[in-house]
Amino acid sequence: MDKDMEGGNLGPYQERPRTFPDMRSKPNTPLIFRLLMRINTRVLLVLLLFGLGALLYIGASTSPIIVFVYSVCILSFVVSIYLTKWVLSKDEGPPEMVMISDAIRDGAEGFFRTQYGTISKMAILLGLVILSIYLFRNTTPQQESSGLGRSTSAYITVAAFLLGALCSGVAGYVGMWVSVRANVRVSSAARRSAREALQVAVRAGGFSALVVVGMAVLGIAILYAIFYVWLRVDLPGGMKVTDLPLLLVGYGFGASFVALFAQLGGGIYTKAADVGADLVGKVEQGIPEDDPRNPAVIADLVGDNVGDCAARGADLFESIAAEIISAMILGGTMAQRCKIEDPSGFILFPLVVHSFDLVISSIGIFSIRNVRDPGVIGVIEDPMKILQKGYSVTVILAVLTFGLSTRWMLYTDQAPSAWLNFALCGLVGIMTAYAFVLITKYYTDYKHEPVRTLALSSSTGHGTNIIAGVSLGLESTALPVLVISVSIISAYWLGHTSGLVDESGNPTGGLFGTAVATMGMLSTAAYVLTMDMFGPIADNAGGIVEMSQQPESVREITDVLDAVGNTTKATTKGFAIGSAALASFLLFSAYMDEVSSFAHLPFNQVDIAIPEVFIGGLLGSMLIFLFSAWACAAVGRSAQEVVNEVRRQFIERPGIMDYKEKPDYGRCVSIVASASLREMIKPGALAIISPIVVGFLFRILGHYTGHPLLGAKVVASMLMFATVSGILMALFLNTAGGAWDNAKKYIETGALGGKGSDCHKAAVTGDTVGDPFKDTAGPSLHVLIKMLATITLVMAPVFL
Amino acid sequence: MDKDMEGGNLGPYQERPRTFPDMRSKPNTPLIFRLLMRINTRVLLVLLLFGLGALLYIGASTSPIIVFVYSVCILSFVVSIYLTKWVLSKDEGPPEMVMISDAIRDGAEGFFRTQYGTISKMAILLGLVILSIYLFRNTTPQQESSGLGRSTSAYITVAAFLLGALCSGVAGYVGMWVSVRANVRVSSAARRSAREALQVAVRAGGFSALVVVGMAVLGIAILYAIFYVWLRVDLPGGMKVTDLPLLLVGYGFGASFVALFAQLGGGIYTKAADVGADLVGKVEQGIPEDDPRNPAVIADLVGDNVGDCAARGADLFESIAAEIISAMILGGTMAQRCKIEDPSGFILFPLVVHSFDLVISSIGIFSIRNVRDPGVIGVIEDPMKILQKGYSVTVILAVLTFGLSTRWMLYTDQAPSAWLNFALCGLVGIMTAYAFVLITKYYTDYKHEPVRTLALSSSTGHGTNIIAGVSLGLESTALPVLVISVSIISAYWLGHTSGLVDESGNPTGGLFGTAVATMGMLSTAAYVLTMDMFGPIADNAGGIVEMSQQPESVREITDVLDAVGNTTKATTKGFAIGSAALASFLLFSAYMDEVSSFAHLPFNQVDIAIPEVFIGGLLGSMLIFLFSAWACAAVGRSAQEVVNEVRRQFIERPGIMDYKEKPDYGRCVSIVASASLREMIKPGALAIISPIVVGFLFRILGHYTGHPLLGAKVVASMLMFATVSGILMALFLNTAGGAWDNAKKYIETGALGGKGSDCHKAAVTGDTVGDPFKDTAGPSLHVLIKMLATITLVMAPVFL
Repeated sequence: MDKDMEGGNLGPYQERPRTFPDMRSKPNTPLIFRLLMRINTRVLLVLLLFGLGALLYIGASTSPIIVFVYSVCILSFVVSIYLTKWVLSKDEGPPEMVMISDAIRDGAEGFFRTQYGTISKMAILLGLVILSIYLFRNTTPQQESSGLGRSTSAYITVAAFLLGALCSGVAGYVGMWVSVRANVRVSSAARRSAREALQVAVRAGGFSALVVVGMAVLGIAILYAIFYVWLRVDLPGGMKVTDLPLLLVGYGFGASFVALFAQLGGGIYTKAADVGADLVGKVEQGIPEDDPRNPAVIADLVGDNVGDCAARGADLFESIAAEIISAMILGGTMAQRCKIEDPSGFILFPLVVHSFDLVISSIGIFSIRNVRDPGVIGVIEDPMKILQKGYSVTVILAVLTFGLSTRWMLYTDQAPSAWLNFALCGLVGIMTAYAFVLITKYYTDYKHEPVRTLALSSSTGHGTNIIAGVSLGLESTALPVLVISVSIISAYWLGHTSGLVDESGNPTGGLFGTAVATMGMLSTAAYVLTMDMFGPIADNAGGIVEMSQQPESVREITDVLDAVGNTTKATTKGFAIGSAALASFLLFSAYMDEVSSFAHLPFNQVDIAIPEVFIGGLLGSMLIFLFSAWACAAVGRSAQEVVNEVRRQFIERPGIMDYKEKPDYGRCVSIVASASLREMIKPGALAIISPIVVGFLFRILGHYTGHPLLGAKVVASMLMFATVSGILMALFLNTAGGAWDNAKKYIETGALGGKGSDCHKAAVTGDTVGDPFKDTAGPSLHVLIKMLATITLVMAPVFL
Repeated sequence: MDKDMEGGNLGPYQERPRTFPDMRSKPNTPLIFRLLMRINTRVLLVLLLFGLGALLYIGASTSPIIVFVYSVCILSFVVSIYLTKWVLSKDEGPPEMVMISDAIRDGAEGFFRTQYGTISKMAILLGLVILSIYLFRNTTPQQESSGLGRSTSAYITVAAFLLGALCSGVAGYVGMWVSVRANVRVSSAARRSAREALQVAVRAGGFSALVVVGMAVLGIAILYAIFYVWLRVDLPGGMKVTDLPLLLVGYGFGASFVALFAQLGGGIYTKAADVGADLVGKVEQGIPEDDPRNPAVIADLVGDNVGDCAARGADLFESIAAEIISAMILGGTMAQRCKIEDPSGFILFPLVVHSFDLVISSIGIFSIRNVRDPGVIGVIEDPMKILQKGYSVTVILAVLTFGLSTRWMLYTDQAPSAWLNFALCGLVGIMTAYAFVLITKYYTDYKHEPVRTLALSSSTGHGTNIIAGVSLGLESTALPVLVISVSIISAYWLGHTSGLVDESGNPTGGLFGTAVATMGMLSTAAYVLTMDMFGPIADNAGGIVEMSQQPESVREITDVLDAVGNTTKATTKGFAIGSAALASFLLFSAYMDEVSSFAHLPFNQVDIAIPEVFIGGLLGSMLIFLFSAWACAAVGRSAQEVVNEVRRQFIERPGIMDYKEKPDYGRCVSIVASASLREMIKPGALAIISPIVVGFLFRILGHYTGHPLLGAKVVASMLMFATVSGILMALFLNTAGGAWDNAKKYIETGALGGKGSDCHKAAVTGDTVGDPFKDTAGPSLHVLIKMLATITLVMAPVFL
């Protein structure tokens, strides 16, 4: 990524037939794959089959539901392997494309290696910290009675944490792996037809979506089954099945820990490169985006892969894992309270929902293929329509399968109509997702009022553009909050009135209702992730087309795909923040359950009229502001380094602008990489350390002032305020960023003076400001919200 | 203000000896003053003496403390009359200055009339709404037993509301009245010596500060005494003195209602004019600030008076009133719980603290006079040092008098050392204020790291400047939050351990401890307000000097004063938000006290683990985001109108740039005035209506789901989350705005390329964005936070 790329940069640009000769430095296959490849294929196959058999055996002795989940996951892996083979079988186009793609791949894989090297070291360190905390932890009476001692509990949590971290890392790697291979194939396909390009991009996205969702589901299912068999659950002397999900929280924390750093590092990388490239290229020199003369252009393209593909893969993996685990905990708690005979339906329900998700999303992905018969070159249909048609298919199937799953899993004789109420909760979730997509579209699409007003405000200068964008972003928080409010309350009341009551006749299904709504919202996650992954792949393909100087018609096709990608990216963010908002409410209910179970004290309220608890809230909200500040500042600082480097290159190599000299892409790549690795540490450490410190300090304060559980209460309030502020801040950052981007695009269509006008310059400023908002700070906040919840779950012993 | 000003604009600029002949359109004395002036002076004097006598009589039959408070307030009014006379006796300088000053005065008074006309109509309407609500209100058992029926309670609340609104309006008027008269006298004095100019500005600021604080204290003292005598408090059959403060909440709400619209309207006015003038003048045409060729310059100068002076007067009036009332309520509640024999000391303590505030601030104001002997022309000393010396004098006196007041008022035999604990609480408050001033200075002064980094980031363009400013602002929330956290907790614990216990031996002084800390923070309010008022007066004086084209040496003096004014304005904002943060915690304790007393149900916790209550919090935080959005958008929209108008004038009258044609100032004034009046309604209505609607809806929901007090609980949570988000958002907006402003100023000192460089242009963009942040949305949020608390106090019957 560094030395090899810097070689060969000094020769004059036009004399070299091969533009990037030295880019593919070395085979970047990770060590584990290389080891696997050395083993004889037959031995490997036997080992694989053996493992599979063991898994199925354990699954079968747990529950038939687990076997079903296994089968669907394995099936979806088979489908995803088919999708990869299909994508990889496409041609890579002419050599100049391949060379650029190789440069991108090298940069992305190099950064990924270094980044995940750092992350894995931190994960192992944190694993040791958790281990030592758990070795001094109090256990619940249930665990004690089942013989689950301190050390067992500690090893279980740490193992789950490391497995979660590992899976999250693999999810990120898979996302990036396919995108750096698919981008050039999309470019190449774009030379033939728009639809083929679309199909390649969608199937590549579908591959990683299926792997990410499948791995989240399978990982939890395997852990569940192993713990079930190992801890002799529901056997005499064993632990109760309803306590089992609490052992899985380590997995969620591991996943969110890795996702946080992946998103931060990747987000800073992609936007530092993008902002730096734009500020000098577009604003100062007036050259178009992805122009080969810009020294930061390869870094920018690498950024799409590490920032959007790898990070989003880890992010969605973490969302789904956290949501499944918290729903399992709540299902278990409710089943226990209601004394339901076979609680496994309530506990395993989320796994089933996401198994169906894999099935219906695969159908959605394959439905895109049949839109029109292939081979008609030059006709550009609106790819958004095609994608949305696939989405509609998926949503309709989701409604059907969701109803089916509730009837199958949640039917209980105690409350015969409860399943219907929960099915309606699921519908609420699906409708919430849809409403979020619509609202995001309204605020970020230039077909609507807000972005047009924003574009108009650019005509009076940079300042009014920024003011208008900030106020648009702040305003856009209102409708989503109203939607979340309505859906939480209605799902809660649907659950509450489901007929499920505890021993004393109190309705208990409320929280589980919101859990089911969250699952409803995420019931099309794999398809949504596909649409999201499609964006950066299309963006990259466009970059390759631009850099390899393909004819105008090819660029047109990738431009259309890129624009659609921007919209799908924005709507996915709305979807992600909506599900985070719903899931967070589950997560802190799970936290309160856990604390009261560990502390042997009732803990069912968080009273913010107590000064310390209120202070906890204040600190929680402040954490969000500070985190966002540091994430944005990191991008700003790194971008300044890029700007200075690019300016330096333009001054020192005046031939670049006339295509006479070749810019030094490699230097930009290595500058961005080292800057983003350095910058991701501070906000990441803040997010992890501050809840622990606050909880610990207030625990001590509570100890000296005779206030039991003070630490846990303060942390709960911190968590809730941070969640609320985080949702609002993320909505603000994402929407403002998306709107600025599209206001610029709107002006580039020729409105208000078009490209190159003063109005356009002001809009580019807005776009630049929006970049770290929407692609670094905003998405990192999604992860942060859920990580705070899982870290408090895992670190609860520190506060007690 | 409109037609008259437009006349005489067409003649060529340089041919007219009197630049603004038609500005002073008509005498702008309000109707009430005109009526008063028609009465014979002797009759007036007799009436005044009679009123005074009645007041003293009522006061004397209430408590000697009230007589003390009266005397100090009347004394401070005498001092303030002396200050006005002194200021008005100064000369107004040459006729060209007077003409400009007249134009500013006309614009400001015209806008004030129209704005307060609208506000008073809304206030009367709201008064009627409150009346009708209270006529259907439940009364507390105490009130019933004391014969205070529904209608009496209704009339009392509405009368208090209207009096609060009226006083707030007068506070605003006084602030503006003196500033439009002092500005030209400061300009004129600047021709002679820097110190004289400083002294005039400080004394003018001191006048309105004393009137504002004095009126807040006196108004509450009078209401208290009248209610005391009227309702036969503490007599057999009368009500208890500890219930009395609850009747005053209407006063606080009236004050904050007017302050909100004053701040919104004024803030939008001043920044729309400023941004509009800067965008075309500085950025597009490259002419300096306050250049007479800029058609928006008079509107900008008018804005300083209506936005900073009038609005800040109303704001501080409201802060002090709300803080006094909530502290009185808490003092009463605590005294009742502890069965203290004579609770009047605890209830009247805040009035005494602010009486001393008047005395020591007057000393501080007069201390500025003796710095150096007058008459040395041309020597510019650092005015900041002089002001800070005065501040140090005031703070030292504050510590002494605060200790004195606690010993006098809060000594009780039940807990002999309690007063010492409370004195320490006061010290905590004073130190908190000091810490806030220091932190604000660190983040907004260009002598320190953050602003320098921000300035440096301007060198890479508009985009990086905005990103850096946003992250600086977001980051700057961290330290103040830590300071607030420490001070709330330490004051709470000091109060808690004061030895005051209720019947069952539980410590009860905690909340009163935070109340005392808040008073400590505000114990130098009058001096701080003086420093704040100084800013816009100096700013205006600078504008008059610039516009009347005085020699360079005079400009230098006003420039120095202006720069100091910017710093004091920023630090006052830190002070205001710090006190709002502390006061808010009192206000919602008072709210919970009131609700439980009206509903005959215990209400001492706000449990955010209940979904509806959590939703309330989400909505509360969202309210802050939406309000900020609308406030910023209002400025952006109005500024665009100004930009278009100024551009139009430059195109239609090409002679303006060569001083050959005179710009049409009046049109800009009237455009800004009508735009800001239109734009202030939406955010203002949002702030007032949404808590009422939310409370009412959840009350109904609670009714149907069998959840008593749900409405009140949801509103409490909304209030707390809104407070937390509001504090953070206001800190963000104020600090970011101040830092952008000073980064620009730093570059203008010659750093990083100096004036006119690309770096400076980027910094001007930042300054433009910061303007609505720091002078419209930020200060409005201070008011909003306290208005939400008082509106929930007054509207509580709607939620029950």
